[in-house]
Amino acid sequence: MTAENIIWKDRFADRARRMNASEIRELLKLLDQPDIISFAGGIPDPALFPAVAIGEAYRSILSDPVRAAQALQYSVSEGYLPLRRWIAGHMAERGVPCDERNIMITAGSQQGLDFIGKLFLSRGDTALVTAPTYLGALQAFNPYEPHYDTLMPEGGNRTPESYRDQAAARGGRVGLAYLVADFANPSGETVSLVAREGLLDLADALGTVVVEDAAYSALRYDGVEVPALLALDVARSGGIERTRTLYCGTFSKTLAPALRVGWVCGASAVIAKLVLAKQAADLHCATINQMVMHQVAEGGFAAQVARNRDAYRERRDAMLAALARHMPEGVSWTRPEGGMFVWVTLPEAVDGAALLARSIEECRVAFVPGGAFYGEGRQDNKLRLSYSLSSPEQIEAGIGRLASLVARMVAGN
Amino acid sequence: MTAENIIWKDRFADRARRMNASEIRELLKLLDQPDIISFAGGIPDPALFPAVAIGEAYRSILSDPVRAAQALQYSVSEGYLPLRRWIAGHMAERGVPCDERNIMITAGSQQGLDFIGKLFLSRGDTALVTAPTYLGALQAFNPYEPHYDTLMPEGGNRTPESYRDQAAARGGRVGLAYLVADFANPSGETVSLVAREGLLDLADALGTVVVEDAAYSALRYDGVEVPALLALDVARSGGIERTRTLYCGTFSKTLAPALRVGWVCGASAVIAKLVLAKQAADLHCATINQMVMHQVAEGGFAAQVARNRDAYRERRDAMLAALARHMPEGVSWTRPEGGMFVWVTLPEAVDGAALLARSIEECRVAFVPGGAFYGEGRQDNKLRLSYSLSSPEQIEAGIGRLASLVARMVAGN
Repeated sequence: MTAENIIWKDRFADRARRMNASEIRELLKLLDQPDIISFAGGIPDPALFPAVAIGEAYRSILSDPVRAAQALQYSVSEGYLPLRRWIAGHMAERGVPCDERNIMITAGSQQGLDFIGKLFLSRGDTALVTAPTYLGALQAFNPYEPHYDTLMPEGGNRTPESYRDQAAARGGRVGLAYLVADFANPSGETVSLVAREGLLDLADALGTVVVEDAAYSALRYDGVEVPALLALDVARSGGIERTRTLYCGTFSKTLAPALRVGWVCGASAVIAKLVLAKQAADLHCATINQMVMHQVAEGGFAAQVARNRDAYRERRDAMLAALARHMPEGVSWTRPEGGMFVWVTLPEAVDGAALLARSIEECRVAFVPGGAFYGEGRQDNKLRLSYSLSSPEQIEAGIGRLASLVARMVAGN
Repeated sequence: MTAENIIWKDRFADRARRMNASEIRELLKLLDQPDIISFAGGIPDPALFPAVAIGEAYRSILSDPVRAAQALQYSVSEGYLPLRRWIAGHMAERGVPCDERNIMITAGSQQGLDFIGKLFLSRGDTALVTAPTYLGALQAFNPYEPHYDTLMPEGGNRTPESYRDQAAARGGRVGLAYLVADFANPSGETVSLVAREGLLDLADALGTVVVEDAAYSALRYDGVEVPALLALDVARSGGIERTRTLYCGTFSKTLAPALRVGWVCGASAVIAKLVLAKQAADLHCATINQMVMHQVAEGGFAAQVARNRDAYRERRDAMLAALARHMPEGVSWTRPEGGMFVWVTLPEAVDGAALLARSIEECRVAFVPGGAFYGEGRQDNKLRLSYSLSSPEQIEAGIGRLASLVARMVAGN
């Protein structure tokens, strides 16, 4: 059999092309070139990782023979009980009273999206997503072959009937509604309280689940915290067991991504189904990493989050100031209250991908063009800029160079 | 929304009941009761884990700031390059010349099965599996809604046309053929060289992939090693890029399961597709665990495997001797040359699940009844016994007690 003869499932061949993941991967490799100022990554700064505390946790667990035997052995699919209890306490602080039965540990929040897609999306169903939306969510849902329809939480949502009719016309039902409510990837925007309530109304009317991707929620730098969709759902429905929201959390942006520890919080009946999916997919998350995350979180989660906030706030401020200082007229951008991203809208004639090609060549600045971040339709005059990995000085220099190039392109040069 | 109102995908509700995973989980909890002798688990003995080497690897990686930053950061979906190269060398020793492009790191071999199901099985397709087969493979494939047809590698395989026609009659095609070729879970049996070649012939005729689950392959205690299906495929097709076999390997049974590090080895074009599935599902395996596995494997994989073989060989011998000594006439069992399992056939009138209920109650011995290990049809007069976690003395005592009960049930008491 040669590769040409393999019968792929169409979904893989087509979706992979559409999403262009390999192009984005190529882009990320530019990070390794020292003269490139990259706003592409959107990953945490390793200088902020609590490496000492993590190392001490591995050491203490593995130097105790009883704990070492547990840490290296198979364990239950729902996750390490003390960690699930710690997370339940963390969720309670976010306005979601719950216990360990409401928590399943996943390999980052990304894996929660895969399992939720597996559980709620059949071929031909419709997933509601914002425009733009997190590329990784589209990648997680795509293998289950949904159609996409567009959520417009800030007042633009269509009627439930309209979403339902559109899904039915495409041969399925609305399987889920997905969004990053706080400091979204890629837009940086936060969904308002009113819009959150409206979204829950819509989901109630459609009888669908709401998937709340909370990857960045702990990283608020200013402004007023908006309650989590799951917290609002608990408040209106009378308890977590009656909610329809699945909250996908992670330690990737607060402690460190590479231990691959995240969670889903929701009604225990849904969690029990997701545990079956977890068991079938990879049995469980690395036992030792769950024990380490528990020890590190218990020892200083709040202090670590505060440290991250201080560092990223300074970079966000530097990027917003540089954009205001350097960008020509006709360019606009979002003003994130947290997270890692600013979403830039160029004049319509300027294509983000074309800008990137020239930017790498002429001014050695990298970013992600916006076209990939759409479930249906796409807008090509958008850029995602991340400030998480750059110093204020790099941000000032990089935005200055990028703005000059934009100005030249707007002027037709 | 209450749990009753959630629209599950039918596949989850139905399959979960059929597979009875929660019953098996309950069974495994019996391990915690000290007076139970359990042959149920089928998991490695934690006393054999190289905990010191693993601890030293975590320590050395995290105490070097550059390596620590890498170990705790996001990394590529295909896996840590030095580990992929080490595994490529390991595969070459198994008769599979390949390089890192032929290796993707997965969260145990289980995750390879999930991704292969995702890539090759559409709803209504047929997966060919042995009877019995690994329960976890059925769980991994079930969400993709295949039918199952039965592989009988040792001379009983039907014609390619017969498999193809049956799959077509069920509305799909043959998507894959799956087996554990060495010391299978649950049967303990090893597929012969002739049968392996026959299986590759069948797969050639059907144009389907062969999924070789090699979870136990390193644990041979005696007898002559049979070449891996992938090695035979390479030999006949002229190189790994022309093969149709996907080899799912793991460190779970040789080093330790809880770091969740396994791999898939195959043609690079297929690996590239599986990397897209990995990226969508959970981005990548824990970076730090991959680095640790690399260091531990490089430092002493062969010695660790030899240590495991010696320990498990003694237990296998004890179990086969105890079965021969104690079991009444009319009971037969397999004689594994490696791995962790013996598969027992009771007289037809004796139901394995009924035996388990009485065994727990009357003689405090646990095992897994065989009925769950079938893709279609099922045989209920079977037991899976694992010797991996018990001492020779426990094995002698437990099999003695179990055999007495079987004798009483055969006699109608």
